[in-house]
Amino acid sequence: MKKLVLAYSGGLDTSYCAKHLSQDEGFEVHAVSVNTGGFSTEEIRKIHNKALELGATTYTSLDAVSTFYEKVVKYLIFGNVLKNNTYPLSVSAERIVQAIEIVNYAKKIGAQYIAHGSTGAGNDQVRFDMIFQIIAPEIKIITPIRDNQLSREAEIEYLQKNGIEYSWEKAKYSINRGLWGTSVGGTETLTSHQPLPDSAYPSQLQDQEPKKIKLTFNKGELVAIDGTKDSPVNNIKALNALASKYAIGRDIHVGDTIIGIKGRVGFEAPAPLIIIKAHHLLEKHTLGKWQQYQKEMLGNFYGMLLHEGNYLDEVMRNIEAFLTDTQKNVSGDVFVGLYPHRFQLEGISSKHDLMNASFGSYGEMNKGWTAEDAKGFIKLLSTPGKIYNHVNRNHD
Amino acid sequence: MKKLVLAYSGGLDTSYCAKHLSQDEGFEVHAVSVNTGGFSTEEIRKIHNKALELGATTYTSLDAVSTFYEKVVKYLIFGNVLKNNTYPLSVSAERIVQAIEIVNYAKKIGAQYIAHGSTGAGNDQVRFDMIFQIIAPEIKIITPIRDNQLSREAEIEYLQKNGIEYSWEKAKYSINRGLWGTSVGGTETLTSHQPLPDSAYPSQLQDQEPKKIKLTFNKGELVAIDGTKDSPVNNIKALNALASKYAIGRDIHVGDTIIGIKGRVGFEAPAPLIIIKAHHLLEKHTLGKWQQYQKEMLGNFYGMLLHEGNYLDEVMRNIEAFLTDTQKNVSGDVFVGLYPHRFQLEGISSKHDLMNASFGSYGEMNKGWTAEDAKGFIKLLSTPGKIYNHVNRNHD
Amino acid sequence: MKKLVLAYSGGLDTSYCAKHLSQDEGFEVHAVSVNTGGFSTEEIRKIHNKALELGATTYTSLDAVSTFYEKVVKYLIFGNVLKNNTYPLSVSAERIVQAIEIVNYAKKIGAQYIAHGSTGAGNDQVRFDMIFQIIAPEIKIITPIRDNQLSREAEIEYLQKNGIEYSWEKAKYSINRGLWGTSVGGTETLTSHQPLPDSAYPSQLQDQEPKKIKLTFNKGELVAIDGTKDSPVNNIKALNALASKYAIGRDIHVGDTIIGIKGRVGFEAPAPLIIIKAHHLLEKHTLGKWQQYQKEMLGNFYGMLLHEGNYLDEVMRNIEAFLTDTQKNVSGDVFVGLYPHRFQLEGISSKHDLMNASFGSYGEMNKGWTAEDAKGFIKLLSTPGKIYNHVNRNHD
Amino acid sequence: MKKLVLAYSGGLDTSYCAKHLSQDEGFEVHAVSVNTGGFSTEEIRKIHNKALELGATTYTSLDAVSTFYEKVVKYLIFGNVLKNNTYPLSVSAERIVQAIEIVNYAKKIGAQYIAHGSTGAGNDQVRFDMIFQIIAPEIKIITPIRDNQLSREAEIEYLQKNGIEYSWEKAKYSINRGLWGTSVGGTETLTSHQPLPDSAYPSQLQDQEPKKIKLTFNKGELVAIDGTKDSPVNNIKALNALASKYAIGRDIHVGDTIIGIKGRVGFEAPAPLIIIKAHHLLEKHTLGKWQQYQKEMLGNFYGMLLHEGNYLDEVMRNIEAFLTDTQKNVSGDVFVGLYPHRFQLEGISSKHDLMNASFGSYGEMNKGWTAEDAKGFIKLLSTPGKIYNHVNRNHD
Repeated sequence: MKKLVLAYSGGLDTSYCAKHLSQDEGFEVHAVSVNTGGFSTEEIRKIHNKALELGATTYTSLDAVSTFYEKVVKYLIFGNVLKNNTYPLSVSAERIVQAIEIVNYAKKIGAQYIAHGSTGAGNDQVRFDMIFQIIAPEIKIITPIRDNQLSREAEIEYLQKNGIEYSWEKAKYSINRGLWGTSVGGTETLTSHQPLPDSAYPSQLQDQEPKKIKLTFNKGELVAIDGTKDSPVNNIKALNALASKYAIGRDIHVGDTIIGIKGRVGFEAPAPLIIIKAHHLLEKHTLGKWQQYQKEMLGNFYGMLLHEGNYLDEVMRNIEAFLTDTQKNVSGDVFVGLYPHRFQLEGISSKHDLMNASFGSYGEMNKGWTAEDAKGFIKLLSTPGKIYNHVNRNHD
Repeated sequence: MKKLVLAYSGGLDTSYCAKHLSQDEGFEVHAVSVNTGGFSTEEIRKIHNKALELGATTYTSLDAVSTFYEKVVKYLIFGNVLKNNTYPLSVSAERIVQAIEIVNYAKKIGAQYIAHGSTGAGNDQVRFDMIFQIIAPEIKIITPIRDNQLSREAEIEYLQKNGIEYSWEKAKYSINRGLWGTSVGGTETLTSHQPLPDSAYPSQLQDQEPKKIKLTFNKGELVAIDGTKDSPVNNIKALNALASKYAIGRDIHVGDTIIGIKGRVGFEAPAPLIIIKAHHLLEKHTLGKWQQYQKEMLGNFYGMLLHEGNYLDEVMRNIEAFLTDTQKNVSGDVFVGLYPHRFQLEGISSKHDLMNASFGSYGEMNKGWTAEDAKGFIKLLSTPGKIYNHVNRNHD
Repeated sequence: MKKLVLAYSGGLDTSYCAKHLSQDEGFEVHAVSVNTGGFSTEEIRKIHNKALELGATTYTSLDAVSTFYEKVVKYLIFGNVLKNNTYPLSVSAERIVQAIEIVNYAKKIGAQYIAHGSTGAGNDQVRFDMIFQIIAPEIKIITPIRDNQLSREAEIEYLQKNGIEYSWEKAKYSINRGLWGTSVGGTETLTSHQPLPDSAYPSQLQDQEPKKIKLTFNKGELVAIDGTKDSPVNNIKALNALASKYAIGRDIHVGDTIIGIKGRVGFEAPAPLIIIKAHHLLEKHTLGKWQQYQKEMLGNFYGMLLHEGNYLDEVMRNIEAFLTDTQKNVSGDVFVGLYPHRFQLEGISSKHDLMNASFGSYGEMNKGWTAEDAKGFIKLLSTPGKIYNHVNRNHD
Repeated sequence: MKKLVLAYSGGLDTSYCAKHLSQDEGFEVHAVSVNTGGFSTEEIRKIHNKALELGATTYTSLDAVSTFYEKVVKYLIFGNVLKNNTYPLSVSAERIVQAIEIVNYAKKIGAQYIAHGSTGAGNDQVRFDMIFQIIAPEIKIITPIRDNQLSREAEIEYLQKNGIEYSWEKAKYSINRGLWGTSVGGTETLTSHQPLPDSAYPSQLQDQEPKKIKLTFNKGELVAIDGTKDSPVNNIKALNALASKYAIGRDIHVGDTIIGIKGRVGFEAPAPLIIIKAHHLLEKHTLGKWQQYQKEMLGNFYGMLLHEGNYLDEVMRNIEAFLTDTQKNVSGDVFVGLYPHRFQLEGISSKHDLMNASFGSYGEMNKGWTAEDAKGFIKLLSTPGKIYNHVNRNHD
């Protein structure tokens, strides 16, 4: 029988796929969902039941939270990656790891087909297909939603006709949760001028009392919050739980999709925003000027390729080697104040802090050099400009 | 007689210079201050009187606000320049224009000397000296504070002994105001871990009522606020006045000084922050992917060289030509919400908006291509990865 | 009747298209060839006759040599663009201008169709189609060779059956001539390890006598050879004629095609290589360090996008503005020695030469600063490293 | 007694230093030379004797050829580094390693002083002093030549007066030999327009017979020539010996010195040029597009910082990590033809070659995709341009 792995989320599109592919197309459907931090145990149980009811032969939930952190999130922190200076690449980054997990699972169980529910109008089809084709060119990709362009109504009618009775009301906002942030789409994000209302965001402002926290980094990784050590993944979860009550980390990302049109999507990502900004501040104290300069260029580039589904490009591994090497001394504490709708970086403490008072302080009396040294320095710095002006003055 | 132009601010250091150079060193002192948006008429009047009292032969206030905007601020907006992703380069940018105005004034009146009050421990000495030496290598630079390393106490004593009776109490925070932001230094900024208290900032939170405003850009320049047209300079001033009541735009910059040590400085820059972020959002809608990519790299580089006093390097003119050329279509309205301590970009409206619904919307049913087109696109995008894996799979 | 513009070269593929489209598909075929420096008057006359014989309603030769220079070649010189440090982008650059000329011609005569003879396996289809679709999305593109994947034999048979009796022997090497170089493909270039034999190149070594020439640039453009002024286009032609006798400028380019596979192609481009290297040397004398640094990065990027058919991307205009601005002082003479199979840059003479002896010479006794100045300079340059070592020494 | 390490080369300047510092200044002089490939055993013996005769307490020759390769040369090859597209950084690179060896030696023997013979007008003083100050800020640097600006005549007179009778005729060309190239300075290089005569170069054209060689790389390192395996260092030496007979690898470098003036220096570096170009060609076959793009940018930057003496900047280690990671698959053979005054890359053979015929060949019939796939690919690539033109067409 034709063995097929279906990337299954429990939503309408992939439910349609499960029924249609198992019943009409004669596939042995193995439904899989990959948890990158967005699913609770209860949700996974429901998805499991639904998958089997829809005709899937098996259902498997792959836990990829740690993999997601190790393969992608870690480097997004090392590189301070915010796409277009705004978006922590929440969904873009998840899709990559989900695709890798799915294709590896398909190879493991010897499936000849992989199906997913993407349309032909978004980024996800590109991220999924590219990774499937590169890792397993022998596996055929099946995309009923993209190919048939069915409407929601047609899908629901089909499922009902086949005895599947779920409530498929469309949520007002389409929400995608994960460890590294939650994306929010709605009618407003289809315009250029409307913000999302507060109610569109899954987390709501709860606390009003400002709070100071201390984030501890070791070689670029978040190893403790307020002195309590835990794994980086758990620390991200804990910080998300804490900061989402302040409604921190909401914004709208406007960017260029892989398929060439502009897209706009809301998101809330409290922990990612706080961690990246705190990590960046720690780097300002512990890295040199040129390290920061090159990190900025390579971090941006890394984010662009990741966003566009090019995670498997070897240059990504090369940049990861670079980024890892830069983190040797990025260790210390960062002090952050949490307030409703915002946070504030207060300062850092690190034994690697290069703002070292024993060498003299900016603007204060200096200990490392004399006035004559400074004048010599400036004179030689001025030489190219002096020559340029001397040579070109009379020729313009 | 030895004609000398003194960059005079009315503060203790330059007041010492005025007295010392005119009385002890036999210079004919022509005091000059350059207004880049930080001085009121009343302050200038006081500085004028003080200069003459201290022995200056003449005092001149050069109004350089428009020059400052045209030569520097405009390009910082075009390039969305925030040093280390934080600091709008408020003071760095001003010093450049002040230096140029001063050296041109010195050449105009035929001075053989220029004096300034910088110490040997900061960035300003480099910015001043480099520009003076490049534009007028024939003029000698005099820097009594740097050369003699006098303490505040010694300076005050000297002035008192010479009959100058001002109150020279040291302000708790050293404040530098200008069109493009106000810097704030204090004991906290000499540490790595302490934030500035709210009271350190010149502007205090006054309004609590959220407010929506509309910023109109034309080819990258801010030409109207809420539909009221005015010059960019006046619009910046108006926006500063408006947004400073919300205590917006405060932060602490940590960066690498020209002289090689790390420096930390607080600032409040409500208009710069809002304008740059609003301008950047408008660009996300009106510029292509590669324009944004190159702008980010060149904008950062421009900021770095400006910060380090290399404004006169020809590459800066080349980058300005690039940036100006990118602004052709950066026109339209940006909607901004002001809240206590923060602002929020709500959206934009522009006839150049590339997020054009008639071409299909991100994630929605697409109009411009078929499922087959998308699959062909992805297949060819995957080719290099497929080849790489095929070739290297068996050799690792 | 259905009006169609056919990009016609006189070769087998486009001859097949001319016959097939006019006779079988009922198009009114308007054949067009665009001369970017590769066609002689005699060749154009022959192409003209052939086109009409094959059923074209009209034939037009568009002279685009000057356009080619002004739109593309000029900037390749300004940017010292050699793809992968080797290839002057001869063919890539031509295709762009040819596509623009063709689509503009089609719009002018009101054609609803454009046909070209590209296969589905190369770069040219991308360059042509992208420019056609962007400039005239309303015009439909017809590509019989790509769509039908006909063999040479099938094409010849079809033409013979339809009474077209030309000799279509396949040349041993496929040659593409143009102002900015000639590409050479053959069985060797389909391998990775074989060089092209000397005989594969259109120009053969004729002169053995070394010769010195003087190239004069004005703002980056080649305005005279050995003191004889002419247009840059004519100077390029003259230099090609002169240097091709020395068999200068041959090499093999290996690169990434737009469609994702590696490609290898021989070329001879004597004038492009000499001009770019001479121009670059002049820049080393007349531009500052950072100008050269940014030019290198932007020039490479410009070449990459041009190669990939993205000439119409607005970022290309922005980079052209940058490059043009850098050329202000790139004026002067460059002395070049021509030898069999190679050339040598001997030196330059320019009133903008920044290697100005009055400021002191490298390694010789200096005039602009003292030993103390130099020591101060070095001391401050060393500060970040000293701090880094001091801070991190005990923590590793 | 005051223990001093003198960087001693046997030349006039450092001989003066040896005598003056030991006899007049009361230092216990420990003369050291660092061999980075430029000294023969015989030369070292002569230098040894001379040092002792001049008053040095000890003389030590430190062999740093392998260190030089491992610390610097290897990365220059990985990065294909040619400063300004011309110069393999021969001397710049050596000085770094020499400085590190010297300062480590000084620390080892407990010297409180290091002396070197640099003038105040060149790059070497910066490279030496920076590394000394960063690694050993507690050691004082002594530079008699820079400080006293003695003429050659004065130095010779001093030595003769003190009974040192050597012939100190100035060579017509100042030559600096090392593993990675030989620099050549003379009266011509002080001008902008004169080439060096053939006779100025240490190696003279000997062979006329063209010769084919095969260079074998493993992970970017040259591990064999014509199938004979040896260490990379020995292979470089052997290739230098072989190719210098063809007078290959001569050129003149024009660049920006650290001290801000332009400098011009001739060099011959046959092995470096051949190795870098061969290695680069192998990379064109084995690396992806973006790897090459980022390598080019980072390689240039690495070369710039190395040239300017910033070898100890941590960003250099980070870039080395990047470069090393890119070399995983850069293994295979490169075929090179040697001719009088030039060489030619003929092709490569590698199991990692991405120009893999089983995936279809450039311009030939393709195997990996259909015409429809290609058209879909191009249609989506064209989308941003189509939208841009549609949106902006009517607004310009």
